[in-house]
Amino acid sequence: MFIGAQVSLYPMTSKFVEVIATGLEALTPYKDDLRIETDDISTLMIGSPGPLFDAIRDLFAAAARQPEHVTMHVTLSRGCPGEPDDPICRCETLERAQGETLAERQALAVQAVATAPEVGVGNDVQFSLYVMGGGDHMAEIYGCIDFLKTSGTFYKAKNFSTRLRGDAGAVFETLRQAFLRFGPADGHVTIDMTASANSPGRR
Amino acid sequence: MFIGAQVSLYPMTSKFVEVIATGLEALTPYKDDLRIETDDISTLMIGSPGPLFDAIRDLFAAAARQPEHVTMHVTLSRGCPGEPDDPICRCETLERAQGETLAERQALAVQAVATAPEVGVGNDVQFSLYVMGGGDHMAEIYGCIDFLKTSGTFYKAKNFSTRLRGDAGAVFETLRQAFLRFGPADGHVTIDMTASANSPGRR
Repeated sequence: MFIGAQVSLYPMTSKFVEVIATGLEALTPYKDDLRIETDDISTLMIGSPGPLFDAIRDLFAAAARQPEHVTMHVTLSRGCPGEPDDPICRCETLERAQGETLAERQALAVQAVATAPEVGVGNDVQFSLYVMGGGDHMAEIYGCIDFLKTSGTFYKAKNFSTRLRGDAGAVFETLRQAFLRFGPADGHVTIDMTASANSPGRR
Repeated sequence: MFIGAQVSLYPMTSKFVEVIATGLEALTPYKDDLRIETDDISTLMIGSPGPLFDAIRDLFAAAARQPEHVTMHVTLSRGCPGEPDDPICRCETLERAQGETLAERQALAVQAVATAPEVGVGNDVQFSLYVMGGGDHMAEIYGCIDFLKTSGTFYKAKNFSTRLRGDAGAVFETLRQAFLRFGPADGHVTIDMTASANSPGRR
């Protein structure tokens, strides 16, 4: 299994380089558990969903604690058949999910969000979950949407995507659960996600 | 068939509202052919891939003509089973693709990029194509990658995504061809795409 993300931070300020640098400092505690590479478009993070989503959450929270409007775009992928297996990506939650029914996975996902630590930074998220390969991909997507609606972070449905809103702790846990527990455990699943904080459109 | 995009523009300047407003003016010529709705996170555009990709290209080009670093994120979708049919989305290229082989579609895609109008704005793009539902989704993705490598806009492969570089005319035509001609013509296909211009990381 190969799991990771391409992550980009977009501070809507002329001091954007400083805000990005502050955000990237938040990744330091994760450097043993993730492989991290940055180029001019995005930062690649490879590793298991535990440290991966924690690192993405902390990166965004560090940037969102600045006063400026900031957004982040993340392309997440697990199980892409074109990528090699990597032991750093091993995830017991994903392995256990192989034997769990949709209803069991929904209940475990709700429980994980309810016990997520509070970060103290509010944010908005818009995301799409994609399930590739055989099987009934829409059944898994509808099953995920049912989970989202009871997660406590659901804000509204939009064309092609779902909006979440709340503390970054609960919101990023919701995203991790959607990524981990829906779609076949050994399948190819991706998320296209945007987070936003301090938007003048919400003030 | 239902076709559209959620589009967000991120100018890395304290004057981001002005740059976004300038970009949105570029959408005026498309208001008869597309349904356009804006909220605090993104602008929804619904319509056929002809005006849809032209509008997205012109929006980004208008913002990229300003001196500031700007990025745009676009979530594109066609054929999502959860969305209703809409006559505004009808696309003859897509209908014809039903009877075409992969090799025929690749040749038509290369030809379309070669004859794309020049816009005069250079940009970088990073994107992922997702093909949902039955069939061999990776065969269509590898077929698309082969097209990209001969498109003239290919820059490099990255984990989970492909980088394009060039004039916005050729680059957005490459994206339209990837979206239209790969994956089943009546299937569910999405693109997760980021464009970037005036990046200090490239200067």
